[in-house]
Amino acid sequence: MNILVWNEYRHEKENPVVSDVYPEGIHGALADFLKKDGHTVTTATLDEEEHGLTEEALDNADVLVWWGHKAHDEVEEDIAERVKQRVLDGMGLVVLHSAHFSKIFKKLMGTGCDLKWREADDKERIWNIDPTHPIAQGISQYFDIEKEEMYGEHFDIPAPDELIFLSWFEGGEVFRSGATFKRGNGKIFYFRPGHETYPTYYHEDVQKVIQNGVRWAQNTNGPKHQYGNAKPLEHISEK
Amino acid sequence: MNILVWNEYRHEKENPVVSDVYPEGIHGALADFLKKDGHTVTTATLDEEEHGLTEEALDNADVLVWWGHKAHDEVEEDIAERVKQRVLDGMGLVVLHSAHFSKIFKKLMGTGCDLKWREADDKERIWNIDPTHPIAQGISQYFDIEKEEMYGEHFDIPAPDELIFLSWFEGGEVFRSGATFKRGNGKIFYFRPGHETYPTYYHEDVQKVIQNGVRWAQNTNGPKHQYGNAKPLEHISEK
Amino acid sequence: MNILVWNEYRHEKENPVVSDVYPEGIHGALADFLKKDGHTVTTATLDEEEHGLTEEALDNADVLVWWGHKAHDEVEEDIAERVKQRVLDGMGLVVLHSAHFSKIFKKLMGTGCDLKWREADDKERIWNIDPTHPIAQGISQYFDIEKEEMYGEHFDIPAPDELIFLSWFEGGEVFRSGATFKRGNGKIFYFRPGHETYPTYYHEDVQKVIQNGVRWAQNTNGPKHQYGNAKPLEHISEK
Amino acid sequence: MNILVWNEYRHEKENPVVSDVYPEGIHGALADFLKKDGHTVTTATLDEEEHGLTEEALDNADVLVWWGHKAHDEVEEDIAERVKQRVLDGMGLVVLHSAHFSKIFKKLMGTGCDLKWREADDKERIWNIDPTHPIAQGISQYFDIEKEEMYGEHFDIPAPDELIFLSWFEGGEVFRSGATFKRGNGKIFYFRPGHETYPTYYHEDVQKVIQNGVRWAQNTNGPKHQYGNAKPLEHISEK
Repeated sequence: MNILVWNEYRHEKENPVVSDVYPEGIHGALADFLKKDGHTVTTATLDEEEHGLTEEALDNADVLVWWGHKAHDEVEEDIAERVKQRVLDGMGLVVLHSAHFSKIFKKLMGTGCDLKWREADDKERIWNIDPTHPIAQGISQYFDIEKEEMYGEHFDIPAPDELIFLSWFEGGEVFRSGATFKRGNGKIFYFRPGHETYPTYYHEDVQKVIQNGVRWAQNTNGPKHQYGNAKPLEHISEK
Repeated sequence: MNILVWNEYRHEKENPVVSDVYPEGIHGALADFLKKDGHTVTTATLDEEEHGLTEEALDNADVLVWWGHKAHDEVEEDIAERVKQRVLDGMGLVVLHSAHFSKIFKKLMGTGCDLKWREADDKERIWNIDPTHPIAQGISQYFDIEKEEMYGEHFDIPAPDELIFLSWFEGGEVFRSGATFKRGNGKIFYFRPGHETYPTYYHEDVQKVIQNGVRWAQNTNGPKHQYGNAKPLEHISEK
Repeated sequence: MNILVWNEYRHEKENPVVSDVYPEGIHGALADFLKKDGHTVTTATLDEEEHGLTEEALDNADVLVWWGHKAHDEVEEDIAERVKQRVLDGMGLVVLHSAHFSKIFKKLMGTGCDLKWREADDKERIWNIDPTHPIAQGISQYFDIEKEEMYGEHFDIPAPDELIFLSWFEGGEVFRSGATFKRGNGKIFYFRPGHETYPTYYHEDVQKVIQNGVRWAQNTNGPKHQYGNAKPLEHISEK
Repeated sequence: MNILVWNEYRHEKENPVVSDVYPEGIHGALADFLKKDGHTVTTATLDEEEHGLTEEALDNADVLVWWGHKAHDEVEEDIAERVKQRVLDGMGLVVLHSAHFSKIFKKLMGTGCDLKWREADDKERIWNIDPTHPIAQGISQYFDIEKEEMYGEHFDIPAPDELIFLSWFEGGEVFRSGATFKRGNGKIFYFRPGHETYPTYYHEDVQKVIQNGVRWAQNTNGPKHQYGNAKPLEHISEK
């Protein structure tokens, strides 16, 4: 499978706390464990030409993984539309953490995608509530992340097609942390963890979930649907 | 309840076949049977200033009913955004027939909202598949519309929160004809029938469904959710 | 609306801690605030003849509220089947707390309905995650219950039709605390709180949710669906 | 994967019309094309000891395929319960055609599972309405079955987790023909076609859907959830 990992890649260049955690960028860390899962992985970042999201790059991607945070607005409108269209045409999309506020996720959800947040070293416990879902394969009843940014409900998304993970936060909040959505031919998985100052993407269970999510998001279905004017398949009586 | 009925109101002015069926416009016909249900109903049309969708008009509307077809592109972008925002803030929305392709519905769904169609006097039979839903209250197992435009699957929408009606068409197609969606604080009901050249909005069952849909779409819930930075509700330990 | 409140009514007779909290029984407390909401409320308990669930009592009930805990097995099989059938025929059902393990709820869900639990004075915080749902009307972003029994995921139910409330527990768990299901003509609302040793059913928000839930669960829809052999509605060609 | 195909196997022994179509029994036809898909397939039938559904046979099955019609009541209660329990424990289940009325399906759904039906050589057209679902992989926009028994709405099932196929019938009905459900650790796929007097299970698209359905229904997830009394994971304050 061909995976394209997109990262805003600004925090790492501006904040040594972040670059210490992710010396090759968050995209580097994500690409690393996805390659180990047997995929062909390329990366793209905001400051590349066309944000690295050329028609060719998208055409080659079975699944796109997206991380962004502080520069959502700098993603050009027509490129966000291009990515959205590719998802509707069948490219899978894995949306991570603060990408809940990305143009592409908001366009696909149709809602504000807002939430509560706090940077206060909350402990996060992620509960697995769908024991049948392939994205939860190999994941135990729950797993802990010692320190993370808190995201709390209400999370302003449409009711997900499937709800897989719920987070408990030390400071008293809960969150729908793993959820799937289908839009057109595209399968979308939102997964909450991954604040830039914590080593979350080195966490074994987090990696497992993202690996599972990428596999789930690939749509290999065959014939495409046709739209528009359609001849009758049966005789229509005179009236 | 205050209902705002919006109609493109172009076919009626250009095509005598349509104005013969709806001499007061489609909005007039819709307003008529909604008033009979006890509501305060106002109407607005495309060619009015701001399409009749001023901030004030929207602020006063508990539920907006929308019919459009040939001039979706003439709805100004910022007014479409304004309407979308009002839905997310809690105004109900009933989307009729060809409004599946309206800017507002596409923005709220996040998908292309395309479908198959045919104008060939198909008989349509609408099956009620949710015997518990308030929108199906008073509706029998099915009802027939003698002649209608055909809409066929695949209907490119997200999986609805609730699926209430399925259509059978004489020419061989099926369609998800009554479906609900929630976006933010807004409740949305899509209902298929209503091609402009047929007297569909005089059909007793069609009127009943739209009356039910408008009632269902009103959101009277109280306190609004807050978003953004949030103080902890519990003590967070030092780590 | 006619509401029938059913309570096992054993803890109150055997344990003074419970009877101190609920001197009129849990059913008495529930009936009290439902009457204040304008309904006609009757009660029934396990040790009555036919558990108080005669054909007549059920025929008169628009909605049944159910609380049980330690004596689920003493509900006779044919009476559990009778109640199930009435729900499928259109009586609403509100299932409270430990009734997750009642025969009637397990029959309607088709699953084991198991969960984690702990009696340790956990603080519970119930988050409202559906700002549009009539069952959440008047409920703020969250409300706290100072001390409650903990119920934790995985809660072994089918994916709910709608998920309205999520609980946070002090001891580290989360739970899907408010969920709706439809079965046949019946609407079912499960609501988590209400361990017998705590004054939970005097909590204003808990009362509000149960009042809302009872209203939501009533199905007033009209014509019933027919099943079995059906004559064709259209001509079937010779083949 | 190990697949167990269960068939009532009565029509074939009593009605030469059926045995002419399925000389090796319906189970034989099903097993045949599932073997071609690379699986290890065994079969079991009603008149075998324990209906062929011994503990051992079920323990070895990753997925069970079920066809029954006229003798649902002859499946012993405790064996139906045994099969249900295995599904809840993680065995996949593919339920075909008239097995909508099987004990096992009704127990897992919690509803009556009734529908309309007619044996009148209706043409059936099955529309694919989920272009992303693995069960629809390789299936075009629709496929036709020249002659089939009609099943019509209302189909008395819970709202499916996913709706994949809708049927159009020549005589004027529609039906939710392909639907998924999760119960406990088990994944369930209901697929409508397959009346015993028609060669439906030789239809290439029908075979493809069942092959896809069997693959989808396998649950390979790892650690099982634990239930019952649970120690706190965090400190609970004195109150």
